[in-house]
Amino acid sequence: MPASQEEASLSDALVILDPDQTDLLRELDATFTGWGRSAGAREILPPPMYPVSDLEKFDVYVNFPHLNLVAAPLDLEAGRGKPVDGRFAAGDLGAARFGLPHATCYGAYLYYEGTRVDDNTLVTLVNRCFRNEDRFSPLRRLVSFQMREIVALGTFEHTQNVIAEFTGRIDRFARALSLDLKKVAATDPFFENDGARALLQRLSPVKYEFCRGDLAIASVNTHRNFFGERCDIRLRQGGEHAYTGCVAFGLERWLAVLDEQYGGDARQALESVRAAAQQVG
Amino acid sequence: MPASQEEASLSDALVILDPDQTDLLRELDATFTGWGRSAGAREILPPPMYPVSDLEKFDVYVNFPHLNLVAAPLDLEAGRGKPVDGRFAAGDLGAARFGLPHATCYGAYLYYEGTRVDDNTLVTLVNRCFRNEDRFSPLRRLVSFQMREIVALGTFEHTQNVIAEFTGRIDRFARALSLDLKKVAATDPFFENDGARALLQRLSPVKYEFCRGDLAIASVNTHRNFFGERCDIRLRQGGEHAYTGCVAFGLERWLAVLDEQYGGDARQALESVRAAAQQVG
Repeated sequence: MPASQEEASLSDALVILDPDQTDLLRELDATFTGWGRSAGAREILPPPMYPVSDLEKFDVYVNFPHLNLVAAPLDLEAGRGKPVDGRFAAGDLGAARFGLPHATCYGAYLYYEGTRVDDNTLVTLVNRCFRNEDRFSPLRRLVSFQMREIVALGTFEHTQNVIAEFTGRIDRFARALSLDLKKVAATDPFFENDGARALLQRLSPVKYEFCRGDLAIASVNTHRNFFGERCDIRLRQGGEHAYTGCVAFGLERWLAVLDEQYGGDARQALESVRAAAQQVG
Repeated sequence: MPASQEEASLSDALVILDPDQTDLLRELDATFTGWGRSAGAREILPPPMYPVSDLEKFDVYVNFPHLNLVAAPLDLEAGRGKPVDGRFAAGDLGAARFGLPHATCYGAYLYYEGTRVDDNTLVTLVNRCFRNEDRFSPLRRLVSFQMREIVALGTFEHTQNVIAEFTGRIDRFARALSLDLKKVAATDPFFENDGARALLQRLSPVKYEFCRGDLAIASVNTHRNFFGERCDIRLRQGGEHAYTGCVAFGLERWLAVLDEQYGGDARQALESVRAAAQQVG
């Protein structure tokens, strides 16, 4: 790729939000968090990196190796210690012990790892997520973005109740904003290498995305007991592995969609989000 | 290092905050942000990584190369594509085009890069910061932590007024919390390779840290026109390079100190922070 084209793609990959965009993103996040709290969730706060050995538990290096970014130190003995043409070559880097997550909910499973949970556990968290995409697009496809999640752990029935409840809220919120969102069944690459779950997924979709055009701005996800098993999270009553499910909001993507809807007027969008949130309750 | 010892050091490097700690961190952040707003700042929202070519402008790879972490993709052709013993070797990694920042205020200079600012510009932002430390300690010395900053850009006098005002607020807030904070002159490695500024720094300290014991939980920093020059930020009136200064709060470190002060009772700490914030106004 010519240097100038790569430069352009790098500047599409990241954004510093201006004050009006920041207020809007904070309002959206407060709205989704409020839905979580009103459903009984408390908030936990995860870091934006984990030991590689933790992320490995979730098959991320098997199922989507190309998407991953890891945090490497500089090798100041073998390497040059400084970037050349805006990059460090592999030979400049030391071994990477930390990985950058590409989804927020991992933090919830690591938080509850090795513990027993109530049948109807609900928690919310937001994190910076990282995806090494082939191409980037401002607000829509960033190398780093924010994802708010509401995560249910407990019985399978609890996960499905939470997903049903939030599906309804997302629908009502979108209608109140006159946003034309389509709920689309999707596949989840988590389960591609897991025969039984891959079969179940073909029989009954485990992921639905809420899309405006081709852009998914929210999703609801059923993981069955995949994460419960991987993190040995068990039900307090009975001791079987917990089922999990999550509701995810891509915050910058909501900004992208509202930017379109309100012709770039983030203040007007903020007013509308406030009004819609009040309407949905 | 034996594997078990390294495992321990990795788990000291990161923390997932529980709900009470999360509420406390959010309250502290809202308090410091409120001080910024009441002084006229609006908030911007930076990403937790930047092109290496942007961070390079700030001499980070010259002045503290050991502290830096960069985000590398996996080389799926030459590398093994999976971690061994919880790490990817350098040979498993591709070239790194993005760096992870170790301070928050870079986002402000990149936001205003190439623009003209008013004499008394004030902005606030929080970010995830990353430091590849030799040793880690829970909440006190993490590989990734949150830093809230209030950044002044404009005339030198403006930067000094903001620093004086926030020094007073920090002092009053600490007193209201009965926190024994000491203001300590420190040196800033930014200017070590810059002859004239290094001399100025020896004549007149440009960094003061607010320490409890040996732990700095806040700092005030005078950068003169270093960042204004590096990012070509100029004064709207007159066109000379802007002066900058910043006030920084290490949020997890405040948690560490309040945890000590309140014997691990984060809810009691939250009540005290609310009361102290009201008192300071």
